[in-house]
Amino acid sequence: MSDFSITERNRIRRRADRARYDKEAIYAIIDEAMFCHVGFVHDGRPVVIPMLHARRGDELLIHGSAASRLIRHIQAGHEISISIAILDALVLAKTAYNQSVNYRSVVLFGRGRLLEGEEKVQALAHLTNKLIPGQWDYVRKPTPNELKATGIVAIAIEEASAKIRNAPPGDDGEDRGLPIWAGLLPVKQVILEPVAADYTEEGTPIPEHIQRLLMKDVTDNH
Amino acid sequence: MSDFSITERNRIRRRADRARYDKEAIYAIIDEAMFCHVGFVHDGRPVVIPMLHARRGDELLIHGSAASRLIRHIQAGHEISISIAILDALVLAKTAYNQSVNYRSVVLFGRGRLLEGEEKVQALAHLTNKLIPGQWDYVRKPTPNELKATGIVAIAIEEASAKIRNAPPGDDGEDRGLPIWAGLLPVKQVILEPVAADYTEEGTPIPEHIQRLLMKDVTDNH
Repeated sequence: MSDFSITERNRIRRRADRARYDKEAIYAIIDEAMFCHVGFVHDGRPVVIPMLHARRGDELLIHGSAASRLIRHIQAGHEISISIAILDALVLAKTAYNQSVNYRSVVLFGRGRLLEGEEKVQALAHLTNKLIPGQWDYVRKPTPNELKATGIVAIAIEEASAKIRNAPPGDDGEDRGLPIWAGLLPVKQVILEPVAADYTEEGTPIPEHIQRLLMKDVTDNH
Repeated sequence: MSDFSITERNRIRRRADRARYDKEAIYAIIDEAMFCHVGFVHDGRPVVIPMLHARRGDELLIHGSAASRLIRHIQAGHEISISIAILDALVLAKTAYNQSVNYRSVVLFGRGRLLEGEEKVQALAHLTNKLIPGQWDYVRKPTPNELKATGIVAIAIEEASAKIRNAPPGDDGEDRGLPIWAGLLPVKQVILEPVAADYTEEGTPIPEHIQRLLMKDVTDNH
């Protein structure tokens, strides 16, 4: 996959050693994260809202109520910025200055368009399968009224950069000899035991595509 | 604790049944999350960047390089918006329309000020102990040069709202009888086995304040 151009806006100024501009690294982070944080300018003031997302090619799909302010704002063609972050470890150093976290993050910029018709249905399938791969084929498909109530936008990713820290603590020189425990505490998101809805008839088997997720990382499956 | 006023800007328009404006609910979410996503307007365009944070009273502390664009922007008194989200469960419904997630999220607005002197040191202690409670007293404190390289801003939380979904899947009517498994897959962030840095002398005990975090939720300890 190709790289994003480095521009005045997506160039990482602080800790440039952690910067990545290649689509492979950036898209892997986008695909693993469940939430993205969408920023836009409303009456000259900043607003950031958390949303669910799924990437399809070079576009980010976001869905919400068709009448929501964010969907209408994106539909109107305004520029947005999106931030994503995944925590990988607490980084415990021997010095206060070097306490840190290992993380993977993405900041991107783009503009969206409202999806309609078959393209909208396909996007909804994609978003549903982001939550649980295979779920779209298993459940009842949306009615025309349900489709009408849902707004889906596709945001063309115009500029993007990733920032990754994946390293042990960074104490220097004499500090390394201090009689203090330094190291990583890795962090993972895991799925716990499923809880059936009270209207799921007893004995209904949990289908294989859901079984596959259980007691595994959320992230390993996306 | 008191509530935030409901304004044109922080009022939750979509799914108002999920809205919370009380500080107790909002601050619990802020305190549990490790990352926040800070949005600001730069040359009329939106920018969102992930940051580590800690709350102290009605302020949010954020630190970065003293020279970073975000710190300088906040220092200049510009308004910012901050988004936080925590994933609690995948919500699997019998209908595509009702696939969802259980989550707790906060959107807030405020302006910041740069901290100096003793107030800055106290804020750094607070941020360090957010990562690992008790860590500040255990590690080497910052030198004057390290302090100079760090920028810490305190953002007064002027407006805020939380949105919480904590419910089973929401299928209605006839859909509830469909022969499909519906339910929750709870999600948790856990800490795995610690990995000592190669410069941590073998046999260095892991102190009790770190031991307390191991194999427990990241979130239970914050």
